[in-house]
Amino acid sequence: MRRAIGIIGGVGPYAGIDLVRKVFDNTLAVRDQEHVDLYMSSVPSIIGDRTNFLLHGGENPAIGLYACFDKLATIGADVIAIPCNTAHAPPIYDEVAALARTHWPDVLLLNMIEETVKVIKAHFAGGATIGLMATLGTHGQRIYQNHFTDEPSFSLIEPDQEGKEAVHRAIYDQGYGIKATPSPSERARRVVKEQANLLIERGADAIILGCTELPLALKAGEVSAHLFDPTEILARAAIAHVAQGKLRP
Amino acid sequence: MRRAIGIIGGVGPYAGIDLVRKVFDNTLAVRDQEHVDLYMSSVPSIIGDRTNFLLHGGENPAIGLYACFDKLATIGADVIAIPCNTAHAPPIYDEVAALARTHWPDVLLLNMIEETVKVIKAHFAGGATIGLMATLGTHGQRIYQNHFTDEPSFSLIEPDQEGKEAVHRAIYDQGYGIKATPSPSERARRVVKEQANLLIERGADAIILGCTELPLALKAGEVSAHLFDPTEILARAAIAHVAQGKLRP
Repeated sequence: MRRAIGIIGGVGPYAGIDLVRKVFDNTLAVRDQEHVDLYMSSVPSIIGDRTNFLLHGGENPAIGLYACFDKLATIGADVIAIPCNTAHAPPIYDEVAALARTHWPDVLLLNMIEETVKVIKAHFAGGATIGLMATLGTHGQRIYQNHFTDEPSFSLIEPDQEGKEAVHRAIYDQGYGIKATPSPSERARRVVKEQANLLIERGADAIILGCTELPLALKAGEVSAHLFDPTEILARAAIAHVAQGKLRP
Repeated sequence: MRRAIGIIGGVGPYAGIDLVRKVFDNTLAVRDQEHVDLYMSSVPSIIGDRTNFLLHGGENPAIGLYACFDKLATIGADVIAIPCNTAHAPPIYDEVAALARTHWPDVLLLNMIEETVKVIKAHFAGGATIGLMATLGTHGQRIYQNHFTDEPSFSLIEPDQEGKEAVHRAIYDQGYGIKATPSPSERARRVVKEQANLLIERGADAIILGCTELPLALKAGEVSAHLFDPTEILARAAIAHVAQGKLRP
C-alpha cells in the first residue's frame, strides 16, 4: 500500500473539500490510479468552534480533532493535515500534536503555519511587508506573528480592529458569511477584497489568506498583491510527504 | 455520536469531491457544527478502472471498493455511497454489496442507480423519453436500461456508437479528458454538450448524466432538457439516511 494523506476536514466542511481539491490539483496524474491516496474525516459535530474556544474557553476542540486524527491513522494515513488556521493556535494545536506523538509516533502531523512561513521566507529572501487576514482567534493568538518576531526584515501588518471584525463577520455571519453559504456571497467577497486592498495601500507586498475560508472568497489576480494560500501550501506539503515525484511543478 | 456518511471516492478522485460538495450543498447548515458527519476514502491505487474490467476482465475493482467500505465502516460510517456509475454494474456492485452484507450487516450500501431511477419515475409519473450519457462500460452493462425494461411508458435512448465513443473519450482521454484535468477542458465540455443536444433532438425529455465525471462538464441550463445528476441524487439520499431534517428542500 502506498503512503496516504489524512485530512481532518469539517473545520469548516468547505475548507476540507478545498484542501482535498488542492491536493488533487497539485498532483501529476492523468488516470484515477495515478492520484495520491487520501482519507478525509469531516465530523464537525465533535469539534467546537476554534475561535470561540480561544476567546471564551470551554471544551478544547483539540479533543475532537485528535479523535479524527486517531480514526485517520487507524485506517492508514501516514501524514495528517488540518485545514484550519485557528486550530493551529498553540492552546489547540499543541494538544493535538502531543496526543498524536504519544499514540501515533510514526504518523506526522503537518503544521500549516510553519509550512506557510517557510514558503513566504523562501519567496521573499530579502524580507517584505506581509498583510494578514484571519479570524479574530488567529489574530488574537498571534499565530503567524510569532513566526516573524526574530526577522527584522519582515513586517506583518493586520487590518485595524474594525477591519478585523469585518473579515471575521464575512467568515462567520449566519446570513452572508462564507461558512453559511455553499459559495461565498457577493457581500463576503466584497468585504474580503476591500480589506485586502487596504493592506496593500498600507504597503503589503503580499497577503496571507490566514483562514481557510478566505481563499474561497478571494482569488489570485483579484487584487494587485501576491496571495499566500495556506491551504494550497498545506496540500503541496502533504503531497511532498507521500509522493514527492507526483508534485506538480 | 451522530450517524455518519461514508463516501468511497477515488473513482475518480474529482467525482469523490463532487459528491462531498453536493452533500454539504444539500444540507441545511449555517455553522460548521450543523453539517452532517462524513468520511471519505480516496484510494485509487487499489481500485482498477471499472470500464476496463467490464470490457477486458482482470482483478475485480470490487475488492478495492470493499477494502474502502471496510475502512469507512470501521471508523463509524453508517451509510456508504460510491460515486461511480460504472462501479454499479452488477459484476462489480453485487460483489461489494455481498461482502458488505456479510461483514457489516448494519451498514447500508446505497445504490446510486436505484436512487436515480426512483427520482426519475417520481419526476415523470406519466413516463418520458430519457437520454443516457455514460462510459462504454455503463452502456455495455445496460446499468440504467435494466431498470426501465418493465416500464413501457419510459424509453431510454443512447448516443449512437460514434457518440458513445466520443463521450467516453471526453471522460478518459489522457490529454483533454475530464479525468485528466483539474477542471474540464473546453473540448470535453463541447463534446458532452453536443451529444446531449443530439439526444434532445431525438426526443429526450431529460438526460441522465450517467458518469460521475459528466456533471463536472455540463451544468443545468446549458442545454434545454432537464439533467438528472446521479451524484446529486446520491448526496440527497445519503443525507436523508443520516439526518432527514437537514435535507435542503
